[in-house]
Formats: sequence, structure tokens, C-alpha cells
Amino acid sequence: VRIAVLGTGIVARTVGAALVRLGEEVTLGTRDVEATLARTDTDVMGNVPLARWREENPAVRLDTYRRATADADLVVNATAGSSSLAALHAAGAENLAGKVLLDLANPLDHSADGPPTLFVKDTDSLAEQIQRAFPDTRVVKSLNTMSAHLMVAPGALADGGTSVFTSGDDPSAKQVVTELLHRLGWRDVIDLGDLSTARGTEMLLPVWVRLWQALGTGHFNFAVAR
Amino acid sequence: VRIAVLGTGIVARTVGAALVRLGEEVTLGTRDVEATLARTDTDVMGNVPLARWREENPAVRLDTYRRATADADLVVNATAGSSSLAALHAAGAENLAGKVLLDLANPLDHSADGPPTLFVKDTDSLAEQIQRAFPDTRVVKSLNTMSAHLMVAPGALADGGTSVFTSGDDPSAKQVVTELLHRLGWRDVIDLGDLSTARGTEMLLPVWVRLWQALGTGHFNFAVAR
Repeated sequence: VRIAVLGTGIVARTVGAALVRLGEEVTLGTRDVEATLARTDTDVMGNVPLARWREENPAVRLDTYRRATADADLVVNATAGSSSLAALHAAGAENLAGKVLLDLANPLDHSADGPPTLFVKDTDSLAEQIQRAFPDTRVVKSLNTMSAHLMVAPGALADGGTSVFTSGDDPSAKQVVTELLHRLGWRDVIDLGDLSTARGTEMLLPVWVRLWQALGTGHFNFAVAR
Repeated sequence: VRIAVLGTGIVARTVGAALVRLGEEVTLGTRDVEATLARTDTDVMGNVPLARWREENPAVRLDTYRRATADADLVVNATAGSSSLAALHAAGAENLAGKVLLDLANPLDHSADGPPTLFVKDTDSLAEQIQRAFPDTRVVKSLNTMSAHLMVAPGALADGGTSVFTSGDDPSAKQVVTELLHRLGWRDVIDLGDLSTARGTEMLLPVWVRLWQALGTGHFNFAVAR
């Protein structure tokens, strides 16, 4: 299938490359293709400019949010949470209508010192904000509770025995995402229920960032033992 | 050692009985001993009245918050989060001064329909509220991320391999709690850092309650695989 992965950061690149390995046609979406390709800076996390990354990942296409989404059967939101709604509006409600949107983003606010806070929480979630803004799109929240490299390689920890969660209002959309998760190697996919349950997984981020600090690595994930 | 366990609900009873099995002197604390013993109702969760429970747990004493705390070497807050500060004020700052306070409570707000929300979160925590109210007490947050029966029997899941977190500003107090956790059977005790990291573990509750609903049981816990 044709998949638009909105974003060009480490999450978008990692997920996009993994989906290509699964045999899918993947286009990363960005606001301005020329501007994205003109960048020459390596970011604070050590990620190389996208133009350089694409030399090693030539099968991953690049296009505008709008064209990537218009051509896609499935859309993945891999933008930063703080710019997700703007990116999706740029993609266009008409291009998102009827499609499954897999939302990986978290509503992190990095504006203050210290660990990031959440700009929406507890009585609402980013996933629900997106669903309300695009009511004809079938939003499924998943994969937002671990590092990008583990999203697509769950076998790298605990022999693949850690857990991933799904939240969504449309059962058939959740089924599409669940099958994709299985293809990525996930075995313990926990369906939490409707999209409001994304409040729970987004609110995992505060302990995630503190575990990342305490353990000194992002190479960890939660396994729900029962 | 003499331990005051503030509260008379299922968490207080379960932890109190377990500490007696470890050989400690345990006193549950309540606001009004006569009123607590006069209750004859079984609560909505099926817990019998305290007077009946004490017949089977005669070694667990009962006294006022104040006297239980005054006599204790270690204090455990096992009250509901919404009444923790009131219970601790009743115990008395002078009786809490210098002592380790193990805080098990979560800031759950059950006032609306649907899953509980958190009455403090993200930029503050119940543990920090308690620490600010009782600056001479050494607050350690732990054991607030699983069901009561698992707090004292971690071996009941995943061969004892699940995780428990500690947060606190006083390293020696955290050491006291960590040794107690080891005696209860916990092997994977993750020190998240200072007390502000309790924001992370308290914010685990929203996904915990949704997992409880999705799995149909509270017999689960998080293992941090790394």
C-alpha cells in the first residue's frame, strides 16, 4: 500500500525506512520540499540532514504534506506533537477523509527548563484533538510509548515480549493498525479501547522521560506482565 | 521497627498485614477509632468492615493518626490521595518530623463519570505537595503503580520480574524504603531520582486504570525491559 509518513525527523525516518523494508511505498511529507532538502545542519540529537539520509534510503520518497497524503492509502503522523495539527491541516482534510491515520505523536511541551510537560492531558489528548479536527479521518493512536528504533524492532528487547497499546474509535481502523504492528514484529498489542484511552498512553510520557534520564538510554520499553 | 500505616482501606490492610509477616510492629492510623470500628458495611469493592478484618489480623493494631504516627519509626501513607494531606495534618507535623514517609497514594479525582482524573499533575505531584506541607519529613514515593496485593507479593507476576519505582529527595530515606521493598520481594527497584519524578509515576495511573478496564483485572504490572 501507499503510506504517507508526515514528518522528516528521526521517528518519520525510522518508521518510513521500516515500512519500505516491509515492501510498502513510502513518502515522507514535509511543508516545503526544497527547504527541507536545502538544510545542511545535523540536529542536536546527531541526526544528519534529510538530503544526506535520503542518499542511503533512496526508496523513501519526499513530497509535500498535501501531495504525500493525497496519494496515500494510510497516513502516519510522525510530526512533533506541537506541530501535528498544523501539519495535518496542511495535508488537507479532503486528503485525509476516510483514511486511517496512525498517530505516533505526543503532546510534549519543551518550552520550560526540565523534563517536558504535556500541553494537553487528563481530560483530553492530542489524538482526540486530531480526531475532532478531522472527523472524517479514522485516528488510531499507537507506538507513542517507546523510542523510534523500538517502534519498528520490538524484538530488540526482551525477545520481543514488550507491549504496545492501541486506542481508536473505529474498530476496522484499529484492525489495520494492529496488522501493521504484527508485521513490524509486535506480539503483545493491547487494545485499550476508544480514542479517549490515548489520554493514558500520552500520559506515560512523563515517566518515560524520567526513565530515560535514570537509565541513561532510550533502549527500554514497558511490558505489561499479567 | 514500629510502622504506622495511615488508612484503613484495602491498601492499608494489605500492606499492614504484610509488614506484620515481616516481623514489624504495625499500627493502622484512622481519624476516629471508635467510628472506624463501629462501621458494619462491606464497601463497594467487597471489603469487609475493619472490625471483622481485625479478627483475622489481630496483630495489626489500630489507633488515631496522631498516636500511631507519634509512636512510629516509619510512616506509610496508605490513605486516598484526596484525603492524604488532611490525614497527615491530623497525624501532626511534630510527629512526622525527621521520619521517613513512604507515600503510596495517588491524586485520583473520582468526582466525574468515567475513569478518574488527577487533581494534581505534570508540573506538581501529590508527593511534592506532601513534602512542601511537611518539610521536616523525608518523603519517598513508591509502590503507587500497582494493585495492593502486588505491592506486597511481586512474585505473583512474571516470577517477580516486574518493576517498582522510587522518587525522593533524601538518599538515606530512599535507602530505607529500598531495603523494605527488597524484603517484600521486589528485585527491580528503579530509582527515578528526586521527588519531582513522582510526577511521572503518578501520571502512570491514567493508563493503569485503562489497562485495568481493558484486561478485566488488576493483576498486572509494568516491567521495564532494557
